[in-house]
Amino acid sequence: MQEMSTQTWNALRCDTAERLNAAAEILGDGKIVAAKDVTRLLEAVIHPGDKVNLEGNNQKQADFLAERLCRVNPKKVHGLHMVQSSIALDSHIKLFEKGIAEKIDFSYAGPQAGKLADAIQSGKVRLGDIHTYLELFGRYFIDLIPRVALVAAYQADRDGNLYTGSNTEDTPVIVEATKFKQGIVIAQVNEIVERVPRVDIPADWVDFVVPSPKPFYLEPLFTRDPALITESQILRAMMALKGIYAEYGVQTVNHGIGFDTAAIELLLPTYGEELGLKGKICSAFALNPHPTLIPAIESGWVKNIHCFGGELGMEQYVRERSDVFFIGPDGSPRSNRTYAQIAGHYAVDMFIGGTLQIDEDGNSSTATARRIAGFGGAPNMGCDPKGRRHASPAWLQCGEENGQREALVGRMPRGKRLVVQLQETFREKMAPGFVERLDAWNLMENAGLSIPPVMIYGDDLTHIVTEEGIAYLHRCRSIEERRAAIRAVAGFTPVGLKANPSETRLLRDRGIVKTPRDLGIDPARASRGLLAAQNVRDLVRWSGGLYQPPGKFKNW
Amino acid sequence: MQEMSTQTWNALRCDTAERLNAAAEILGDGKIVAAKDVTRLLEAVIHPGDKVNLEGNNQKQADFLAERLCRVNPKKVHGLHMVQSSIALDSHIKLFEKGIAEKIDFSYAGPQAGKLADAIQSGKVRLGDIHTYLELFGRYFIDLIPRVALVAAYQADRDGNLYTGSNTEDTPVIVEATKFKQGIVIAQVNEIVERVPRVDIPADWVDFVVPSPKPFYLEPLFTRDPALITESQILRAMMALKGIYAEYGVQTVNHGIGFDTAAIELLLPTYGEELGLKGKICSAFALNPHPTLIPAIESGWVKNIHCFGGELGMEQYVRERSDVFFIGPDGSPRSNRTYAQIAGHYAVDMFIGGTLQIDEDGNSSTATARRIAGFGGAPNMGCDPKGRRHASPAWLQCGEENGQREALVGRMPRGKRLVVQLQETFREKMAPGFVERLDAWNLMENAGLSIPPVMIYGDDLTHIVTEEGIAYLHRCRSIEERRAAIRAVAGFTPVGLKANPSETRLLRDRGIVKTPRDLGIDPARASRGLLAAQNVRDLVRWSGGLYQPPGKFKNW
Repeated sequence: MQEMSTQTWNALRCDTAERLNAAAEILGDGKIVAAKDVTRLLEAVIHPGDKVNLEGNNQKQADFLAERLCRVNPKKVHGLHMVQSSIALDSHIKLFEKGIAEKIDFSYAGPQAGKLADAIQSGKVRLGDIHTYLELFGRYFIDLIPRVALVAAYQADRDGNLYTGSNTEDTPVIVEATKFKQGIVIAQVNEIVERVPRVDIPADWVDFVVPSPKPFYLEPLFTRDPALITESQILRAMMALKGIYAEYGVQTVNHGIGFDTAAIELLLPTYGEELGLKGKICSAFALNPHPTLIPAIESGWVKNIHCFGGELGMEQYVRERSDVFFIGPDGSPRSNRTYAQIAGHYAVDMFIGGTLQIDEDGNSSTATARRIAGFGGAPNMGCDPKGRRHASPAWLQCGEENGQREALVGRMPRGKRLVVQLQETFREKMAPGFVERLDAWNLMENAGLSIPPVMIYGDDLTHIVTEEGIAYLHRCRSIEERRAAIRAVAGFTPVGLKANPSETRLLRDRGIVKTPRDLGIDPARASRGLLAAQNVRDLVRWSGGLYQPPGKFKNW
Repeated sequence: MQEMSTQTWNALRCDTAERLNAAAEILGDGKIVAAKDVTRLLEAVIHPGDKVNLEGNNQKQADFLAERLCRVNPKKVHGLHMVQSSIALDSHIKLFEKGIAEKIDFSYAGPQAGKLADAIQSGKVRLGDIHTYLELFGRYFIDLIPRVALVAAYQADRDGNLYTGSNTEDTPVIVEATKFKQGIVIAQVNEIVERVPRVDIPADWVDFVVPSPKPFYLEPLFTRDPALITESQILRAMMALKGIYAEYGVQTVNHGIGFDTAAIELLLPTYGEELGLKGKICSAFALNPHPTLIPAIESGWVKNIHCFGGELGMEQYVRERSDVFFIGPDGSPRSNRTYAQIAGHYAVDMFIGGTLQIDEDGNSSTATARRIAGFGGAPNMGCDPKGRRHASPAWLQCGEENGQREALVGRMPRGKRLVVQLQETFREKMAPGFVERLDAWNLMENAGLSIPPVMIYGDDLTHIVTEEGIAYLHRCRSIEERRAAIRAVAGFTPVGLKANPSETRLLRDRGIVKTPRDLGIDPARASRGLLAAQNVRDLVRWSGGLYQPPGKFKNW
């Protein structure tokens, strides 16, 4: 046996104690730190090269702490490795422009996607990897452990107990990964109160609390105005309901963000009712509180919804529907992105959403060459979860139909999750929805990625729905057959023009391609009159006034 | 628009209030309930047909509450649907024998696997599904939401704040799913204290606290005595280290339970050092605190370990290694099965473990016809996580080698996780490790499952290591080729006897099969002298006395 090591085993803890002492020397003792002192606090507790988590979620943003981090002296604090869900604010990019941060590992960069691409091109940002949320959370415990976390909450008490309420989102996982690996947790809060309505994060997991001069920024990312839903979207929604939801009896679902799935939500109480599907589909969701789901909830379609985050304006409605949503003992909602993503991966039978481009093999992506938008939760829910072992009728049926199953697992039966893309053959400015080569290849080159950032891979994708028809891709026995099925529904795009009518005829005979006519759907019926709500005002009416949309959605 | 519904939306909350009132009428107000009153409490708050979560984890068991639940009057409380991780105790089966519970959804049933099979056969237990842990946790938020949860903690204060420490395990996810859907949470604790060392579960998430007459039961499930490691296991461990860990530069790993991976852990500071692998492999783990990992930790191989649960006897050692393990602000360890499973699914490059049977297609299972053992975490980690998007050298290399990739995703590159089975061609009593038909098929029939309970599917499995050699299955271009590679390493089993020497020769030429000689390994070197520790006492020495093994592992 070799000699006992003389290594120290508590270096992180000692280093943390030193940082906290440095902070105490400047600011005195106590957890509550005044807004004016935050920059000095950050300079005391963040060291060059640290991995720092700046809470930027899908919705909630620790915007005040982000802005103050931009003000630290780059001679003192530099070379930071940011590990965070979302790059959503100007300040997130500014950190790099000022030389404070150097590297980023993240999931989603919607509004900053263009600036991020530029910053990578110019060498100001070194890109680690782009993740799906749950994957990034996993790495917080393995090789991307934050040294310091800057998070956001609605309220704190003087001990530091945090109330995160409807927008709990990523906070629990960030705080646990940081604090239990000896790291430092700083929370900005909208207010300090005598007693928080409930404890979402216990005080002893939090080092500092900063009352922020204004409430944290919150983006209503999942609100879609029914007035903007097109008849083409309504047709695809009808096809999806009849050709997929009903065909497989899909009870547990995640809907992507966008107008395509908003149309489906608004057809449940009308077209869905007409098809006799109430009780047979859509009883439970892993889903944010989508306002367009209100009519289906009010009509008794939905038994349960677990939310990734909150949605601005939906707080009161959710609170009053405690049988459907998850609500705390205090009566206010709680979301949790980690648990909702787990549910979305393993416990729902179908993911359905829209995309920008699908290639000839069925790989799809929202990447464009000059914008690094990231993945968010889509790959985690838009894939076949290979660790799943429980059976449901939809999962078993899809697995039975899997034409490539024998090539993969021989004689062994296995189910398959439904992964559906709703796709317009041409988007605005006549950009084709089907392409020979995804823009993701260009983005790979521009961003220095190892492989193209594919949102959903062809072998995970089971159905494509276009106005031309549904391609049941998983029924194909080979990739050649899959390519033919994709061509058959790709319309007048360069990919679709390669379709061979006799080949398509054979695919229709075999139930691999179904046109609206094959599905018994008259496209002329796809009118806006079928929607259960025509506009945001209708949604407010459906909610009995409980839904209070943000100003930008109110035009009455 | 249809008329506003007159439905009530807070039925669960009203029902909960009624139950809590019923409890208060019997027991008075206050969260703390005396052990003698627990049966009456359970009769008051649990209603017939409820979904009930009885915390039974891999290690920690809410055994006192389980035993008291067996004592309720089946006329009052019956038809329960148990949703719980593990069926580990006699009381878990007794609930069904007494007619209190009726249906079960679970993950793992090691010690009760035989009794469970009998109870299903005799119609006493209706089986829902068998899950992997994370999958079951996901369903807690969708369609298996517990109405009442019975959990275990080390300590509580008088407000009901819980300290779960090293054995936090499943408690946070169970409590959150239950309490935020208006359910009722009851915790058994080893003691009530003035102030808990830290808050693991906040008081307002807990309805009742019961001081248990004795500490909760804890199973040292991951302790392996080095004295029982065989030379055959050492040979396979050498092959795995040289032919897989080194070949792919695997830095982030999960090890299965068992002697095969214990052998690998004990070879790191010896054979691993000799191969120059220190720093190049195994720097981070999602893993319980395996005592056999102590020599590698002490030798500076391991930078980080995140744990699913605790391991009896390892508490003090873990506590003193805060740079490596996750430790709370109070200085004691915290585990979290949810987060460790997420890390094991998405953030580690390799799962490696042992199994009982592998079929000709590469599907493997630990099922036997008369024992329903369940899956635990294995399928979640022993699969290719299709939602993964970040790249690592190991993942990219394995994906590059994937012979079936083009058939699945066309020209699109994608990585692949390493999933390795260490397999003895013959186990004790000459049971073959390779079979033409898995016992899982018989179990499917006996237990009324929809499909056979496969632990790891053939398309997820990348490598099999037997004493004959390593089969690099993912390099095969077809399932026929995969079958040939399996036969080539299956020794004298019925499967192995079908191997064709000239076919095997070709596979060796192509690097799909490698014998020990191909790997440059002399089987004669596979002796116990290579292990960094020969027995449990050596492990204690390596730990400087910090590891305190349970009595049953002490023979000195």
